[in-house]
Amino acid sequence: MSKLLILGTVAFDAIQTPFGSTDKILGGAATYIGLSAAYFNVPSGIVSVVGGDFPAAYLQMLQDKNIDVSGIEVVKEGKTFFWSGKYHNDMNSRDTLVTELNVLENFSPRVPMDFQDSEIVLLGNLHPLVQNAVLEQMTQVPKLVVLDTMNFWMDIALGDLKEVLKKVDVITINDEEARQLSGAYSLVVAAKIIHEMGPKYVVIKKGEHGALLFHNGQVFFAPALPLEEVFDPTGAGDTFAGGFAGYLAKTEDITFENMKNAVIHGSNLASFCVEKFGTERMVALTDKEISQRLLQFKELTQYEMSISN
Amino acid sequence: MSKLLILGTVAFDAIQTPFGSTDKILGGAATYIGLSAAYFNVPSGIVSVVGGDFPAAYLQMLQDKNIDVSGIEVVKEGKTFFWSGKYHNDMNSRDTLVTELNVLENFSPRVPMDFQDSEIVLLGNLHPLVQNAVLEQMTQVPKLVVLDTMNFWMDIALGDLKEVLKKVDVITINDEEARQLSGAYSLVVAAKIIHEMGPKYVVIKKGEHGALLFHNGQVFFAPALPLEEVFDPTGAGDTFAGGFAGYLAKTEDITFENMKNAVIHGSNLASFCVEKFGTERMVALTDKEISQRLLQFKELTQYEMSISN
Repeated sequence: MSKLLILGTVAFDAIQTPFGSTDKILGGAATYIGLSAAYFNVPSGIVSVVGGDFPAAYLQMLQDKNIDVSGIEVVKEGKTFFWSGKYHNDMNSRDTLVTELNVLENFSPRVPMDFQDSEIVLLGNLHPLVQNAVLEQMTQVPKLVVLDTMNFWMDIALGDLKEVLKKVDVITINDEEARQLSGAYSLVVAAKIIHEMGPKYVVIKKGEHGALLFHNGQVFFAPALPLEEVFDPTGAGDTFAGGFAGYLAKTEDITFENMKNAVIHGSNLASFCVEKFGTERMVALTDKEISQRLLQFKELTQYEMSISN
Repeated sequence: MSKLLILGTVAFDAIQTPFGSTDKILGGAATYIGLSAAYFNVPSGIVSVVGGDFPAAYLQMLQDKNIDVSGIEVVKEGKTFFWSGKYHNDMNSRDTLVTELNVLENFSPRVPMDFQDSEIVLLGNLHPLVQNAVLEQMTQVPKLVVLDTMNFWMDIALGDLKEVLKKVDVITINDEEARQLSGAYSLVVAAKIIHEMGPKYVVIKKGEHGALLFHNGQVFFAPALPLEEVFDPTGAGDTFAGGFAGYLAKTEDITFENMKNAVIHGSNLASFCVEKFGTERMVALTDKEISQRLLQFKELTQYEMSISN
């Protein structure tokens, strides 16, 4: 069992979808990552920052999931990061309505002593300099560094992003971001180019079209489960990354073969995330639901075929 | 080994892609379907129509692949159907530049005596009344009727399409067409609605994002092979359908389990089709190339995971 360190936002979200809308609810990349990884019962800790307005009950809920929150700085006089977005009818695109950085504006991450020797580090979507600052506090080189990022940082901090990518083993980005980062349209070519920037493993998330794992000329594909209804896609990518890293932390096996399973576990957990608003579904998930849906994933893609050469 | 009857266009195409352009080359749905199915060495015949301008060498090439062409009517004084299109840079969308129906305008399909008892009938994309006219010439009810269609017929002949769908076992359409035909955005819901129109099996083609097979609450997903370069997508959907039907004709097993393999074979053959202009790649394919790529498909999606309940 490896120790998992998670960097990312812990935030308030207000979400509008064709199915309804929410007031300020619990959100943030690290929240989704932590809740997802928690289902593997690995020792994990979050590095983040919130304001004095952040309910103690939310921190308690994370602790109840065995997530260490001592790395979540509480700035009493500050306000918690707030994001509001509205999804279009197809649920594949969204408009950001509000982004209030608040306490994130001057965030300087501090890794708790207990987690400075974490074997696995998941750097959630934040400024690449903040991601790098976490790596610099590690007292030993992690076995695996996973980084998630987005187009915004490619627009405004590409140099910083490329610097931190040199220290990264696995990058998880979506298809449009892979194209932007590489300058190539073909995802196969994009993965090769990104590979040369540092990450030995490139995971390209395609939302409802599944996810591709590239490594050393090999490729594995995990589908998204076809769902009757996607209620709220918020956090699905982070949930995917949390499941991916949580499974690897549990199994302590970072071979390509085992990463295939990690990608399936990530897709599996993400399929739950989108069924309700925000973190609602992830908080209440049972082990039985998880294993039953893993069987559905198997049925979806596994087949018996003897191939004659 | 079942007999396979193929209805569809045999045509001239002129294609523009970011990689180059062609003069009038061999094209048409039935051509792609026939070439693809031919790799399963099943007895097949095409019902179509061409003009006096259609080279005998093309008909000979089809015959050399053991495809019966006696159902291809040659209208000496007429001109062959011609389509010209231009693909955009992303290769996922295209503009039609020219459509000259020519001999197709008054096409009345005639099924050769030898093929009126075919066990499998593949109705390629044509007017639903023409598709129905073929079914009415069958002397016994086929074991399996597969129908391909497109949004154009939903726009101008929806009633006729719904009539013929009542006699169809498998429909193959793309995601946008499935949404148009069903009125539902979720493909899971769309498949259910289309299922009620007649087809027991619904195959939804998502191009580079793979294909879904729905049956009776079950679902199977076949990915498209991630390629460095898509050279020309023309005919990929027809090649998929031809491989699907050809495999079922060869194995004579129309269970859901075996249709999973049929979908994989269809995807496999389609992955070759897009590598060169028009039918070029499909004409020259070897059995060895086909089986090697089937192994690639296995590596792409198959994994070992024990799931505890």
